[in-house]
Amino acid sequence: MIDLTREGNVFVLTMNDGENRWNTRFVRAMAAALDEVEASTGAAALLTTSASEKFYSNGLDLEWRASTGEHRGGDRDVFGDEFMTLMGRIITFPMPTVAAVNGHAFGAGFMNAMCHDVRLMRSDRGFICANEVEIGMVIPDPELALFRHKLPMNTFFETVQLAKRWGGPQALAAGIVQSIAPLEELRAQALARAEELSRLGANRAVYGKMKERLYGENAAINGVHGPAYMLRNGAAFH
Amino acid sequence: MIDLTREGNVFVLTMNDGENRWNTRFVRAMAAALDEVEASTGAAALLTTSASEKFYSNGLDLEWRASTGEHRGGDRDVFGDEFMTLMGRIITFPMPTVAAVNGHAFGAGFMNAMCHDVRLMRSDRGFICANEVEIGMVIPDPELALFRHKLPMNTFFETVQLAKRWGGPQALAAGIVQSIAPLEELRAQALARAEELSRLGANRAVYGKMKERLYGENAAINGVHGPAYMLRNGAAFH
Amino acid sequence: MIDLTREGNVFVLTMNDGENRWNTRFVRAMAAALDEVEASTGAAALLTTSASEKFYSNGLDLEWRASTGEHRGGDRDVFGDEFMTLMGRIITFPMPTVAAVNGHAFGAGFMNAMCHDVRLMRSDRGFICANEVEIGMVIPDPELALFRHKLPMNTFFETVQLAKRWGGPQALAAGIVQSIAPLEELRAQALARAEELSRLGANRAVYGKMKERLYGENAAINGVHGPAYMLRNGAAFH
Repeated sequence: MIDLTREGNVFVLTMNDGENRWNTRFVRAMAAALDEVEASTGAAALLTTSASEKFYSNGLDLEWRASTGEHRGGDRDVFGDEFMTLMGRIITFPMPTVAAVNGHAFGAGFMNAMCHDVRLMRSDRGFICANEVEIGMVIPDPELALFRHKLPMNTFFETVQLAKRWGGPQALAAGIVQSIAPLEELRAQALARAEELSRLGANRAVYGKMKERLYGENAAINGVHGPAYMLRNGAAFH
Repeated sequence: MIDLTREGNVFVLTMNDGENRWNTRFVRAMAAALDEVEASTGAAALLTTSASEKFYSNGLDLEWRASTGEHRGGDRDVFGDEFMTLMGRIITFPMPTVAAVNGHAFGAGFMNAMCHDVRLMRSDRGFICANEVEIGMVIPDPELALFRHKLPMNTFFETVQLAKRWGGPQALAAGIVQSIAPLEELRAQALARAEELSRLGANRAVYGKMKERLYGENAAINGVHGPAYMLRNGAAFH
Repeated sequence: MIDLTREGNVFVLTMNDGENRWNTRFVRAMAAALDEVEASTGAAALLTTSASEKFYSNGLDLEWRASTGEHRGGDRDVFGDEFMTLMGRIITFPMPTVAAVNGHAFGAGFMNAMCHDVRLMRSDRGFICANEVEIGMVIPDPELALFRHKLPMNTFFETVQLAKRWGGPQALAAGIVQSIAPLEELRAQALARAEELSRLGANRAVYGKMKERLYGENAAINGVHGPAYMLRNGAAFH
């Protein structure tokens, strides 16, 4: 379901479950792989990708959600909290994280990609999309906050309100992904980028603390006072 | 003053008052047209444009503001509140809204365009501009908040502090408008885009609620806690 | 150390101290020059640049920080507060400010450039970079807030978390600088831009108040209520 290998300083986490739809079993397999990555020391980065040629991750496991009784997807009741907690862990993961978006990334799959530090996307095919409004759902607040903290405001609006389907070149121009490449070069480029960034993972205390300051409780950048006030009253802010 | 027609699923609201400057009579004519649009049911979108070839809307009706006694512009005292309330209504309108900016959009006219979900702009002529600082006025807080929530921060600053005049291609590159077209193609492209988005207007409860979450009271995205905190404490945010 | 001249309506402040690294003496020389600029009246703009061909400003004076006893850099204890206060002054300076970034701008030098209203950057050589994470430091909150208020969110993240080194063309595409030019044309273009903007400096009360509203105490744009709420309840916001 989740394959984890190491190449140089890069932990390569390959989602290997078909469309890589999210259920409780998938969340726990991801969490277990992250435990292994986090137990390492020294320079390191995390690269996630998919074994599928068509899907990075296609969203929630809707078949499982609609089913009843025993199911390989696991406990339905705990899913919401466990999935959200996993996303909160990835967005503050204490080493550089790179997503090689090799195919469609919808809904929860898009969230996962956005929780990474860097995204490379396949240039020729595949869309990323937060399709909640398209299917009649309001996007939950934590997901809104995720997109709002990662994207320029114009891109944020088109993403969450208009459920825009972004292809690779559009996603690059909109600031959603940092580069694009043909499928046959994507993995190698993502691996090279992760290797380059792995040096920052050597100091996990600083790297993780920075993300907490950006995205955590009472985040430094979300206060009501602007930078002029904070600069002039610096003693109150360190 | 305001013409309202329907083409397919699209309500076409044409501002037809010369430079389309804002006074109380103009605000009330717009509000009445919106009442008619909002009373509809089913798939729908709103397209606004202007009958002028030179102006989408050229700002406040300064001649009226400076005048005294009876005037076709109507009650001067209620204007500020009624105009701002109308803008607050448009930015949360419960169906997709598209502005075909076929000419200059200054001050209040720029605000109106920015309250829409999508903007197409004439490519060859015309500027959009928040010219308050240029004419010695401080921009009111609600207008600042409008621009700040819709634009990338660098574009926001140039817009409100430097009173930058954005032509079509520049406005596209800066993230202010989503596409540009020659005047003779602008209306048809805007109509096609509105028709395409009208499906999202079928579920007005979800579409309107999303905008309230983005732009309303205690907006979900404006809290002090970052997305990592919100994701980890999801139960407190739904 | 700091040269100040006037060309037309533009005060040209040239940092002339080699790599222009920040110590207390340098901060005070800058502040004294700003006093002189601010004492003027009428149309005016401030242009800052460097006498070096390689550095705009290369960050803190690390040699001074690591030294003990008498040093030309001055009092070490007061530096943090005085530097931050100076940055808070520049970001709200009551006339247009233009930085001609003619070479590397690292750390404190990057902060200084970002406190300006407009940045032009050399196109062929030189990087701007907030390199704290690269050297194992967490960026202080006021500096985070500065970058977060000036940059699109995707650019902000790459800047502060990944310590990205931005060359001229990249910085332009990312929204960090507003234009680029070859070194031999940079100063003239920056001077022309400052001269053009100097008209806005004639009304210093409005120009300075706008920046306070954007970046000061209880900044208008940082409240928890979104623009729809503010527009509908305009009376509470003016």
